[in-house]
Amino acid sequence: MVKVGIVGGTGYTGAELLRLLAAHPNADVVAITSRGEKGVAVAKLYPNLRGIVDLDFVAPDIDMLASCDLVFFATPHGVAQSTVPAIMATGTKVIDLSADFRIRDIAVWEQWYGQAHAAPELVENAVYGLPEYNRSAIAGADLVACPGCYPTAVQLGFMPMLQAGCVDTADLIANSASGVSGAGRQASVANLLPEVSDSFKAYAASGHRHQPEIEQGLTDMASKSVNLTFVPHLLPINRGIHATLYANLTDPSVDVQALFEQAYADEPFVDVLPAGSHPETRSVRGSNYCRIAVHRPGNGRKVVVLVVEDNLTKGASGQAIQCMNLMFDLPENAGLSAPGMVP
Amino acid sequence: MVKVGIVGGTGYTGAELLRLLAAHPNADVVAITSRGEKGVAVAKLYPNLRGIVDLDFVAPDIDMLASCDLVFFATPHGVAQSTVPAIMATGTKVIDLSADFRIRDIAVWEQWYGQAHAAPELVENAVYGLPEYNRSAIAGADLVACPGCYPTAVQLGFMPMLQAGCVDTADLIANSASGVSGAGRQASVANLLPEVSDSFKAYAASGHRHQPEIEQGLTDMASKSVNLTFVPHLLPINRGIHATLYANLTDPSVDVQALFEQAYADEPFVDVLPAGSHPETRSVRGSNYCRIAVHRPGNGRKVVVLVVEDNLTKGASGQAIQCMNLMFDLPENAGLSAPGMVP
Amino acid sequence: MVKVGIVGGTGYTGAELLRLLAAHPNADVVAITSRGEKGVAVAKLYPNLRGIVDLDFVAPDIDMLASCDLVFFATPHGVAQSTVPAIMATGTKVIDLSADFRIRDIAVWEQWYGQAHAAPELVENAVYGLPEYNRSAIAGADLVACPGCYPTAVQLGFMPMLQAGCVDTADLIANSASGVSGAGRQASVANLLPEVSDSFKAYAASGHRHQPEIEQGLTDMASKSVNLTFVPHLLPINRGIHATLYANLTDPSVDVQALFEQAYADEPFVDVLPAGSHPETRSVRGSNYCRIAVHRPGNGRKVVVLVVEDNLTKGASGQAIQCMNLMFDLPENAGLSAPGMVP
Amino acid sequence: MVKVGIVGGTGYTGAELLRLLAAHPNADVVAITSRGEKGVAVAKLYPNLRGIVDLDFVAPDIDMLASCDLVFFATPHGVAQSTVPAIMATGTKVIDLSADFRIRDIAVWEQWYGQAHAAPELVENAVYGLPEYNRSAIAGADLVACPGCYPTAVQLGFMPMLQAGCVDTADLIANSASGVSGAGRQASVANLLPEVSDSFKAYAASGHRHQPEIEQGLTDMASKSVNLTFVPHLLPINRGIHATLYANLTDPSVDVQALFEQAYADEPFVDVLPAGSHPETRSVRGSNYCRIAVHRPGNGRKVVVLVVEDNLTKGASGQAIQCMNLMFDLPENAGLSAPGMVP
Repeated sequence: MVKVGIVGGTGYTGAELLRLLAAHPNADVVAITSRGEKGVAVAKLYPNLRGIVDLDFVAPDIDMLASCDLVFFATPHGVAQSTVPAIMATGTKVIDLSADFRIRDIAVWEQWYGQAHAAPELVENAVYGLPEYNRSAIAGADLVACPGCYPTAVQLGFMPMLQAGCVDTADLIANSASGVSGAGRQASVANLLPEVSDSFKAYAASGHRHQPEIEQGLTDMASKSVNLTFVPHLLPINRGIHATLYANLTDPSVDVQALFEQAYADEPFVDVLPAGSHPETRSVRGSNYCRIAVHRPGNGRKVVVLVVEDNLTKGASGQAIQCMNLMFDLPENAGLSAPGMVP
Repeated sequence: MVKVGIVGGTGYTGAELLRLLAAHPNADVVAITSRGEKGVAVAKLYPNLRGIVDLDFVAPDIDMLASCDLVFFATPHGVAQSTVPAIMATGTKVIDLSADFRIRDIAVWEQWYGQAHAAPELVENAVYGLPEYNRSAIAGADLVACPGCYPTAVQLGFMPMLQAGCVDTADLIANSASGVSGAGRQASVANLLPEVSDSFKAYAASGHRHQPEIEQGLTDMASKSVNLTFVPHLLPINRGIHATLYANLTDPSVDVQALFEQAYADEPFVDVLPAGSHPETRSVRGSNYCRIAVHRPGNGRKVVVLVVEDNLTKGASGQAIQCMNLMFDLPENAGLSAPGMVP
Repeated sequence: MVKVGIVGGTGYTGAELLRLLAAHPNADVVAITSRGEKGVAVAKLYPNLRGIVDLDFVAPDIDMLASCDLVFFATPHGVAQSTVPAIMATGTKVIDLSADFRIRDIAVWEQWYGQAHAAPELVENAVYGLPEYNRSAIAGADLVACPGCYPTAVQLGFMPMLQAGCVDTADLIANSASGVSGAGRQASVANLLPEVSDSFKAYAASGHRHQPEIEQGLTDMASKSVNLTFVPHLLPINRGIHATLYANLTDPSVDVQALFEQAYADEPFVDVLPAGSHPETRSVRGSNYCRIAVHRPGNGRKVVVLVVEDNLTKGASGQAIQCMNLMFDLPENAGLSAPGMVP
Repeated sequence: MVKVGIVGGTGYTGAELLRLLAAHPNADVVAITSRGEKGVAVAKLYPNLRGIVDLDFVAPDIDMLASCDLVFFATPHGVAQSTVPAIMATGTKVIDLSADFRIRDIAVWEQWYGQAHAAPELVENAVYGLPEYNRSAIAGADLVACPGCYPTAVQLGFMPMLQAGCVDTADLIANSASGVSGAGRQASVANLLPEVSDSFKAYAASGHRHQPEIEQGLTDMASKSVNLTFVPHLLPINRGIHATLYANLTDPSVDVQALFEQAYADEPFVDVLPAGSHPETRSVRGSNYCRIAVHRPGNGRKVVVLVVEDNLTKGASGQAIQCMNLMFDLPENAGLSAPGMVP
């Protein structure tokens, strides 16, 4: 059994880790921290876990965390970078679900997150936790930077075409939409039900923090620079990300459907739908699957890729557990095989 | 492995059986029928099951069903009663999720469902599938009539008080509300999203088909006649039932909180919340749990019981699997231990 | 034109006053205050009012407010009571949408709201703003205490029976449910969309601040003491209140449908539906109507009354404008005749 | 008063016409037809109109309709074309909300709608009812073809740039999303609340009926051929359309914000938001406004235009009334000045 600690357990990704790990045959959560809820039973904050998770929140403690085999950080950006070094020093592995170790260019990170980075030396050793791109590196990693929710969907949707080199990388568009849980579990007016329910809007159309992370990944995949227009939108749903991607084929003879089917043929969590399909976010609700459909309207050079994932699962905690499985040589889908919940 | 067949697989309870049985360690679905979708892959109708359920819908066939150890009927009322006798004749057990075998008084059934009953002789041998009331009888049953969604919540909420004989059975009120999946998966105008979303209403306030089933159960529990006012409401949510029950204590000295805690102390799926709690339907979303809280405003003789369940799980398919586990001597919670999905 | 000021314009009832008054032929909003948003255009906070409301929020100023004919207070409880005396001293009339002047028994108010009352002397002169009960007093009032959202629905649903003296006042039940806007527009975790969407729960089942207000009103109507069980619930919708009321007839020969139809025959905003109906909250969405249906299951002594209103309109700002119309001798439905928005 | 008839009153656009015309000072609905609901009170189908609309549905009757000044067709495609000629023969004007007269190329219409056109001779005289493009022609029209909901949003969002000739017309993208009421009020499984709630998907990504209508309009505006990629999505909301438009500037020196502000400076129903804004669909809920924001990420050549409208109002019935106002020389905003309903 992998002995697991979770830092920052009161947010949605922390709760999702607990929900998923409760069904994991090879992992055991031994500690979950929260400064604010110290001493409170997890099941009091998350009644769905009553009778299933028997832990109380504890204050973060380096020794206790260092006694784990693996610590997940489900904290806001800026937290992991100051604590991770001490934990890793003892040989404990770390998977960070925040943005702290995702961007290799420290200056870019500091610009978008508005603060100095506290552990830049760790960034270059951190492995970007997208198994479909980085599987073997993840398996050998001590520190994994789990991708953001939007970046996972957008990268998985563009990857086969970028690796095949069949699209114009100077004009990629990612029109994406996320459920409100993507905004986290902080008190706010903006995400009250009466503010977002029965409505829809774009946000950050002129620049979003996930943009440099996505561009870094797409550039890696394409092995050349890319130009991405990324417009996120807010969906009045709990969970789910939908990405509608647009690219121009440089070679119109490519069979894009076949390209995607082959690229993901062996992937346990990427499901390429038959031609003509339209994936629904609910088909992956609560599951670690990512579903993709490819369209080519009028059989022209424009390719439209539709991608769905659950922002809390494949977009965060599920993917983190998939990385854990790789790091500890467990079956990659251990604890992650539940289907999406419909309806 | 229990060899399972499902009749009527295109509705929500059929799909929920498939979703839950996919994670069941001791059961194997070998056939799922649908006249309308014969030959279609289950995963085409329910993309969340792609890669998980590999069956096609088949036309109902008695021989094929009779070769199963157990057949679930997830059909509209009136269907099971005409097919069940032939299937049971071969020794196959049956769990019917419809209303066909729930009501012992055939005349009452025929009045509420507006048709003659095709297999009245089976009704008296059918066991009412509420494990918390009927566990040992279910274990020995060949035919289980699975309770309705409203009846499960209402009966579990009143049972401890009726068995203790501490409330006035002449004035029981069940103010209940259900998510829209409770209305089934039939084409209709009434349940279109623009008709029910962002709205709320009561329905059937003067009489609902679940009323005689609930009254039969409450009468059994109280060992005397009861008078129930039952008003269902339609919630603009996918899944979930909430029952707010009102009763008058005949003995104000009763400690109602303790009564409920003791009554359900050993139940794997009934969770009595601490005093002062208010259960949320989301805490049981997709799970087989039923959560109950008890209030006594102003410490008077009025008891208010709050009950939540998932109408498709504990209110239908989860409970059916719980019955299967009992009938086949499996751990009662086999395949049913997943927590509710929050958020 | 009535010259109108609004104190506390950033919350939902303030915004609803602006939306409704924009269409009022005889009123002109000249000032709207907010300490926090001082200097900000109303249309920046509420883009739906762009091009329609041309005001900026200003800091509260007694002289400016006193120059109005009427000031609405759309503030949290505790605010109006400290400012109203100075404003009224100049002859300006006041309609308070908060709880400050609703409860005649100061001690009860102080107990439920946890603070000393700053203007108890005004409470006895305040007129309770329920036009259907108090029309002539409102017409002559200088200070109106606008009823709460739950109290409006519950009182209108019980009133005909209490005035007729045909129900047992010792056992009244109000099972009510409100949309989330009823909780106001404050930053909170509890009312984030991912916390309340696709879910349902009761709250404050052991005691809610609206209980003493409702009991005071029902007692007035019945001319005798009443015993009310009041259980509010939270609906995952923007707007709307639904009350399901239960009472026992003392005289089973009463024609309850006729009683309600006669009681409200001349009311411009109370619509008694035909026998057998079930009102939907959406039928009054954004409108000042209250719709009521009466049921008597099994023709017994239990009466079930179903009431819907929009919590922000008839339950708050619409009713406040209805009171304004009465106070300034305008047509009672001036500015309030728009139908509910469906879908 | 304009004497108005409505053909096809049971759908959402018919109901929206009634809701809006109830507040119109210069129009009087004298007849509303429905074969299926003949003899039924409008208020029975739409309880929000109780006490406001006093009509019963009647069977369609040419003489009766011909006695009106104006007839709105709120029918499925194919209906208006067979009835309109007889009505217009008597001098009655017609506004058709369906697709029957929108597309000038009959062959294209017949291809997308799969039937022969019954009145091709009327198509060339029909005026496309987009006031912002076609105001004077509408004022003189006898037959107006009201634009579709998607086409209105997309055309208003591209128009200033196409008329200025500053974007590459060979690569326009309209990523659009609509509330479920856009699918109409027909019994279906696909649009049941449990099928679409808490979910999101694209549909018709390889081709949608609105595409040729949009392309025709954009071509007119650009005075040259355009190449449009149009991907519609289904939002789990009642009403609202959001379009996210992408285009490449041919001249990067253009001040796009100023271009839009000038283009729509005098438009009563198009509101260009300040730079940096993101319009929400709720800001136009139930109103005839269209709100637009313009972004240019990284100040590059890609322009992102965000457009919101209510699909039933500016996208259908409100726009139809705006056309009526022009045709009958009424103030263009008569009956249409209500703000969007928030929350």
